[in-house]
Amino acid sequence: MKTEELWKQYEEQRFKISAYHLVLGTTFYDSDTIAPEKGRQYRNERMAYLEGEVFDMETDPKFIELRETLYNREDLPEQKKQILKWELKDLESFRYIPKDLYVEYNELTMNSNVAWKKAKNANDYKMFEPYLLKIIDLSKKMLQYRKGDLQGYDVYLSDYEPGMTVEKYDRFFDLIREKLVPLIKKISAAPQIDTSFTNRFYPADQQRKMMKKIMDYMQFDWEAGVLGETEHPFTSSLSKYDDRVTTHYYENNLLSSIFSVIHETGHATYNYQVADELAETYVFDNMSSGMHESQSRLMENYLGRNSAFWDNLYPEMVKLFPQQLSDISQQQFVDAANASVCSLIRTEADELTYPLHILIRYEIEKGIFDGSIDVNDLENIWNDKYEEYLGIRPTCASEGILQDVHWSGGSFGYFPTYALGSGYAAQFIHAMRKDLDIEACLSNNEFGKIKEWLKEHIHKYGGYYLPQQQIKIATGEEFDPQYYIDYLTEKYSALYKL
Amino acid sequence: MKTEELWKQYEEQRFKISAYHLVLGTTFYDSDTIAPEKGRQYRNERMAYLEGEVFDMETDPKFIELRETLYNREDLPEQKKQILKWELKDLESFRYIPKDLYVEYNELTMNSNVAWKKAKNANDYKMFEPYLLKIIDLSKKMLQYRKGDLQGYDVYLSDYEPGMTVEKYDRFFDLIREKLVPLIKKISAAPQIDTSFTNRFYPADQQRKMMKKIMDYMQFDWEAGVLGETEHPFTSSLSKYDDRVTTHYYENNLLSSIFSVIHETGHATYNYQVADELAETYVFDNMSSGMHESQSRLMENYLGRNSAFWDNLYPEMVKLFPQQLSDISQQQFVDAANASVCSLIRTEADELTYPLHILIRYEIEKGIFDGSIDVNDLENIWNDKYEEYLGIRPTCASEGILQDVHWSGGSFGYFPTYALGSGYAAQFIHAMRKDLDIEACLSNNEFGKIKEWLKEHIHKYGGYYLPQQQIKIATGEEFDPQYYIDYLTEKYSALYKL
Repeated sequence: MKTEELWKQYEEQRFKISAYHLVLGTTFYDSDTIAPEKGRQYRNERMAYLEGEVFDMETDPKFIELRETLYNREDLPEQKKQILKWELKDLESFRYIPKDLYVEYNELTMNSNVAWKKAKNANDYKMFEPYLLKIIDLSKKMLQYRKGDLQGYDVYLSDYEPGMTVEKYDRFFDLIREKLVPLIKKISAAPQIDTSFTNRFYPADQQRKMMKKIMDYMQFDWEAGVLGETEHPFTSSLSKYDDRVTTHYYENNLLSSIFSVIHETGHATYNYQVADELAETYVFDNMSSGMHESQSRLMENYLGRNSAFWDNLYPEMVKLFPQQLSDISQQQFVDAANASVCSLIRTEADELTYPLHILIRYEIEKGIFDGSIDVNDLENIWNDKYEEYLGIRPTCASEGILQDVHWSGGSFGYFPTYALGSGYAAQFIHAMRKDLDIEACLSNNEFGKIKEWLKEHIHKYGGYYLPQQQIKIATGEEFDPQYYIDYLTEKYSALYKL
Repeated sequence: MKTEELWKQYEEQRFKISAYHLVLGTTFYDSDTIAPEKGRQYRNERMAYLEGEVFDMETDPKFIELRETLYNREDLPEQKKQILKWELKDLESFRYIPKDLYVEYNELTMNSNVAWKKAKNANDYKMFEPYLLKIIDLSKKMLQYRKGDLQGYDVYLSDYEPGMTVEKYDRFFDLIREKLVPLIKKISAAPQIDTSFTNRFYPADQQRKMMKKIMDYMQFDWEAGVLGETEHPFTSSLSKYDDRVTTHYYENNLLSSIFSVIHETGHATYNYQVADELAETYVFDNMSSGMHESQSRLMENYLGRNSAFWDNLYPEMVKLFPQQLSDISQQQFVDAANASVCSLIRTEADELTYPLHILIRYEIEKGIFDGSIDVNDLENIWNDKYEEYLGIRPTCASEGILQDVHWSGGSFGYFPTYALGSGYAAQFIHAMRKDLDIEACLSNNEFGKIKEWLKEHIHKYGGYYLPQQQIKIATGEEFDPQYYIDYLTEKYSALYKL
């Protein structure tokens, strides 16, 4: 059969699978945002079944053969070959897993997510522990069904960030430990920035209005996306033009929703700006986690915590919270948004201590997979590491080991990409500065220029390139974490007058 | 193979199909409530594909054979036989339709729904007309693929209300025409009730709070349902414990959201109260439209427009709208909620003129299918009939032929069930009064007693019985529309002091 005809067959099959992804993705979103609790069991059983259907379609020997045949065709155009390459790579991550195990694992993670929420609300790790241990157990078991050169934790690290291994992450985190821990110590000893006003009462309804303004400023396309509310903020792009962003409102915390919304809008913008010709291909979802986090953290930290970002928005915010903010200047607000304080919650951590939160999770995950830590003692290990690296010890599980959703979904290997993405972002910003006066764009309400730069240099490619290649395309250089270290050192030395 | 084993196979297949219904239902709900416009094409194409998958599963010759074999097994328990009976009946409605036509029709209705919304907003019937004509065309075409004794419009009437035909509906509507038109004329000549305060400004946010109170009063289980917002209110039960109710807020109309919410909560309550042993079988969704409307209209009109319903709620409402309602007594409010005025919008029509709105739609649908009216002149025909029966002529399409969503979904034969359901409801209320002091229940905040009565006499059976059987079980009598006529005559003669 002609290559073109085979490709058409392939596209038909991908269309079918995309239909399942769409409705399952919608149902997941619905489930996390509004679906009633008592319908959960009925829903989860059926979602697990359909996940199994997708698994069957993806691992159908005929479909595997079709893709492998196509991939080896000499006359397959380069772009199509590249798209297939990533698809075949991902296929490796589950093609040898027995279906029963796959479905069991999916159902387990759905139920674990429920258990995690309950445990977090009840502030009781023991309620979640049996689920976590089972997830760890199955995650290890599934490694037996992986072929290829990688072993153990490396397998999962590479799933989320192709090319990354324990060895490479160790080097990255060594640098962070070596350079940032002393800086953080110095800052702890310096005069502190007043952040107390951020914990005044900020009614959720007013926060909602502020989020609308922030997303308008970031030129979010409301005809192609929505902002919902969940326990844990996330972004889910059901298609290029259907980007779902969520946040959570805490009425005694002004900063939480603001920076989670800027962060998630960064993810959504990446998806929204993938070139049309790639948006219905496999590479639409193939951006690595590190690359995706680089875009969310670039918006959150490098732009959102920049004073110029607030030149237009801060006066609007004061109008929404006149009693709470009339005595606070823009500079005080921006300083508070950048204040570095060793704290317990990752998602609310400042830019400087943030990578240490990740380092802790990385060390724990690494220990889980190399067997060097006792999985029955995870809560203590968590608390010990916070004491060691950040000098504070969680006193309750919801501010400790239960704070993050990730492990309830079995996403081992994901966390490290948060720190890595922040590292990528520093290098992207450095490159962007050669072409754009970032502060002028922010101040002049020209966020579109920044989005355009990101689109042209990064977003339009989707996940077409490996992260390492993509970084080189966008910046002309290999990834160099020194940009990240330099940026943090310079910024925080100035802020704290060290 | 043993009957039990066959039944198990059957249940497995139904489980699979129910998984598709769940995710498609969720995606429909999402699409109507929050999904962004620009994602619609991508979404609709995929939903249409999955509808086709469901069609394939339902019409799979092996599955048909399995059900027919089971149905004919002597040792199949009666309950299971009955469940299968309804499933096989519904199968008849699509089993001979070519799949391409089926998918085309589904895609058409999804796109028509979008076109209808746009046309309604633009107040331009011409924007919707080509879609409607195409739907009519395909609806007629699909009749060719129906077997059985019924022809034309009777086929669709019987789909929504088994046992009903043009002949029977003609008799029902003749009675309405004969008895209610003169009553309405008398009322038009009598002194009118002041309803002007219902058009004061009622902010949507306050209305949202009021809906919560109303649904609390009706003992809606918030862990098993949600209230969303759509252009056109509806209820979609994704499972027994996942009942989605929607409404629409008009800030210059107090009554619209209130009575649509009470109405939809009636639908949701029916689904919620189906017996557990039936809730995951085919009869969960098998209630006829007339039966379902009887439950929604029973709540909306017979309970919601009863003064005792407001003994607890009206003071709460005045607290929410102190400026708008402080000069209005509960009696004035209830009178206004019952005022009969010939008006253009069906969903906001009073109880008395409501069946005439249905009569008009019934006559038009009947004419479409028997060829007696020109489908290219529907807007005029619509307007003429409003002038004839209600004495007022729509001056714009959004208040005329574009007001209802139903035709955009191809739901011909559905409208008549609204009037029929109101008729059933009168008979149910008459029976309920023998066991319960309804006004005392309402006044004493004991809505649960009413729900319990409905559960025991109607809801728990789901769609297990034919409407005619169900009415006899609940009331001990055959359906008799005279209860409805008597109720309306008595109520409105008293209200207008005729």
